[in-house]
Amino acid sequence: MASETGRIEAFSDGVFAIAITLLILEIKIPGINDGNLSTQLAKQWPSYLSFTISFAFIGILWINHHRLFTHIRRSDHPLLILNLLLLFGVCVVPFPTAVLAAHLGRSDQRAAAVLYNATYVFVALCFNLLWRYAESQKRRLLGPEATESAVERITRLYSLVPLVYVICLGLAFVSVRASLALNGVLACFFALPPKMTWRAKE
Amino acid sequence: MASETGRIEAFSDGVFAIAITLLILEIKIPGINDGNLSTQLAKQWPSYLSFTISFAFIGILWINHHRLFTHIRRSDHPLLILNLLLLFGVCVVPFPTAVLAAHLGRSDQRAAAVLYNATYVFVALCFNLLWRYAESQKRRLLGPEATESAVERITRLYSLVPLVYVICLGLAFVSVRASLALNGVLACFFALPPKMTWRAKE
Amino acid sequence: MASETGRIEAFSDGVFAIAITLLILEIKIPGINDGNLSTQLAKQWPSYLSFTISFAFIGILWINHHRLFTHIRRSDHPLLILNLLLLFGVCVVPFPTAVLAAHLGRSDQRAAAVLYNATYVFVALCFNLLWRYAESQKRRLLGPEATESAVERITRLYSLVPLVYVICLGLAFVSVRASLALNGVLACFFALPPKMTWRAKE
Amino acid sequence: MASETGRIEAFSDGVFAIAITLLILEIKIPGINDGNLSTQLAKQWPSYLSFTISFAFIGILWINHHRLFTHIRRSDHPLLILNLLLLFGVCVVPFPTAVLAAHLGRSDQRAAAVLYNATYVFVALCFNLLWRYAESQKRRLLGPEATESAVERITRLYSLVPLVYVICLGLAFVSVRASLALNGVLACFFALPPKMTWRAKE
Repeated sequence: MASETGRIEAFSDGVFAIAITLLILEIKIPGINDGNLSTQLAKQWPSYLSFTISFAFIGILWINHHRLFTHIRRSDHPLLILNLLLLFGVCVVPFPTAVLAAHLGRSDQRAAAVLYNATYVFVALCFNLLWRYAESQKRRLLGPEATESAVERITRLYSLVPLVYVICLGLAFVSVRASLALNGVLACFFALPPKMTWRAKE
Repeated sequence: MASETGRIEAFSDGVFAIAITLLILEIKIPGINDGNLSTQLAKQWPSYLSFTISFAFIGILWINHHRLFTHIRRSDHPLLILNLLLLFGVCVVPFPTAVLAAHLGRSDQRAAAVLYNATYVFVALCFNLLWRYAESQKRRLLGPEATESAVERITRLYSLVPLVYVICLGLAFVSVRASLALNGVLACFFALPPKMTWRAKE
Repeated sequence: MASETGRIEAFSDGVFAIAITLLILEIKIPGINDGNLSTQLAKQWPSYLSFTISFAFIGILWINHHRLFTHIRRSDHPLLILNLLLLFGVCVVPFPTAVLAAHLGRSDQRAAAVLYNATYVFVALCFNLLWRYAESQKRRLLGPEATESAVERITRLYSLVPLVYVICLGLAFVSVRASLALNGVLACFFALPPKMTWRAKE
Repeated sequence: MASETGRIEAFSDGVFAIAITLLILEIKIPGINDGNLSTQLAKQWPSYLSFTISFAFIGILWINHHRLFTHIRRSDHPLLILNLLLLFGVCVVPFPTAVLAAHLGRSDQRAAAVLYNATYVFVALCFNLLWRYAESQKRRLLGPEATESAVERITRLYSLVPLVYVICLGLAFVSVRASLALNGVLACFFALPPKMTWRAKE
């Protein structure tokens, strides 16, 4: 039987895949009259850095979306809307990424870093909202493999994520560098295997 | 058994996902010589507004497409063509969105708002056409869950949608602001849970 | 059982969906200093025309690809390569479309129309090749629903398609207008329901 | 039963399909004031060449990914991360392709060719890593059709691929032309039917 949530996952996969691939379009191609190519390429380090962090962010988001939907087995109208809200955030990511790439290392980098981290906070909040809704109402949207303790562990973890991105955002006002470093550390941390042995179908 | 309409849904999902994600590319990245970044970002409010309305429009369209195809279980040649016509409208959306973003708040905003709303009327008509065809001929393309009354409620609702977008279009000649406000209200309205308990597989 | 050709179809659907959606990016957004917006929009008719023909071409191609793969049920290495070759042609389409849009109605329009039609001939040949290979070798890649007569009708039709696009191409040297008109007529013709009652699963 | 790896394949298919289709966007459309159109189109041969090699590279990569996942039937967290790393490489490909297209035949072509080949080495290494991980630990992630000898043949072949791309990379320092020629030969070679009768479900 095709899963009830199959088409939501297919559409979401499409949006994630496109958003993650569009990021590369924001990196400028040095022209033939811009001077030495190697130098030009090297000078674009902010683009590579913001591309890499954004790629990791969307990639890890996809892994978590995939994971949630091994538990979420039924859908209703609010779930569709909350999922759209999350995808809204995902679609937006290439914009602050490009702004950060253009302004990192310049006098205006603070505003760019704030915009960047604010987007991440928004996405983390949407993710939280989606999961909270799915596990609410006696877990009627969850599948049978979602044990009480697994659900609680996910809920606890997901409550923390918006908080750490708020810290990132706050840090941007103090030091753009420290904020981006924390962003990178978070990406690496979330890429670690989940301790909470999230088994299900994944 | 893979649904007969599986590949239509997959292709449509792809087009919806790409059209909704491409919208972000139309938002300009302020350059490093354009003056204060925060000010530049704030000045782009028409881009954010038209991006948000277009995202909501395509997103809600996808939800409705998804819903229709829980009822439509068989396909034939005209259905493929009508679905393509709808996707034509969906693919076009990023263009009037970008035109509106570039001209909103300027002297030429009326022409942009008319183009924008005309696209919406076209898409709403295509949607209507697709459903009318699917439920015609003794509902031979619909699945068994599509009860008489459910089909009638959908038909009634979908007949109204092009009308309200025609009103939006007309309003653009009177007041661009009022037209866009109505557009936003409509997006919120269609995001509400459907009263007509559209159950089926969704 | 997931069809053996499921992932080929999924990947192809993705490429078709993206190529058809990218077409819109080639239409320029009139700037705020380009003069009256309505006039500017009207002047872009070559872009709308080439967008529409290309959309119809890729859309109809997708319908036919979908149809072939209701017959093709097994895959091997050469089929994958031939399918890639076809997708190469599909991916290329946005380029001649944009060239035609930029040069239609100008002194250089002949070269643009020739490039455009040459791409169509190439795609039609690839399509032919894919089908010929699939139905060769005692139809070992086809499913049981592919009757002798259905296969022959498809083969006959597909042999004609490259020929008519070669005529389109030749016509471009005589009259660009006539060539595009024939292109439009062909798109409409292929959009008609197939007489050859191609039933299968579709 | 939907395969455990179904959604990984769907997401990867999306990324492959988008990366391969975005390549065309890097080819410039000659403007109406750039002189004779045919000449302009002909002068862009480096774009066509790098587009074609990149298309072949990503296409063949997809075929191999498809093939691996006929063997890989179970997934865990590290596999998801390694697959993301591979997709990172795939997403990056349009950038060095565009750089090469802009600089091939110019004084700076060496730097462009080095970047291009370095990307290929990276992707080949990721591919190797993904497979090594999947077949390690008593092949716990592989399906039952993956025989000992099939696995060994794949492992042996995949160990060679990064090496040949390292040779390509080294050659770029000696002769850009020879390096690209070898690149083309490799693409043709990998497009040949695999001798190792890789049957499985494909």
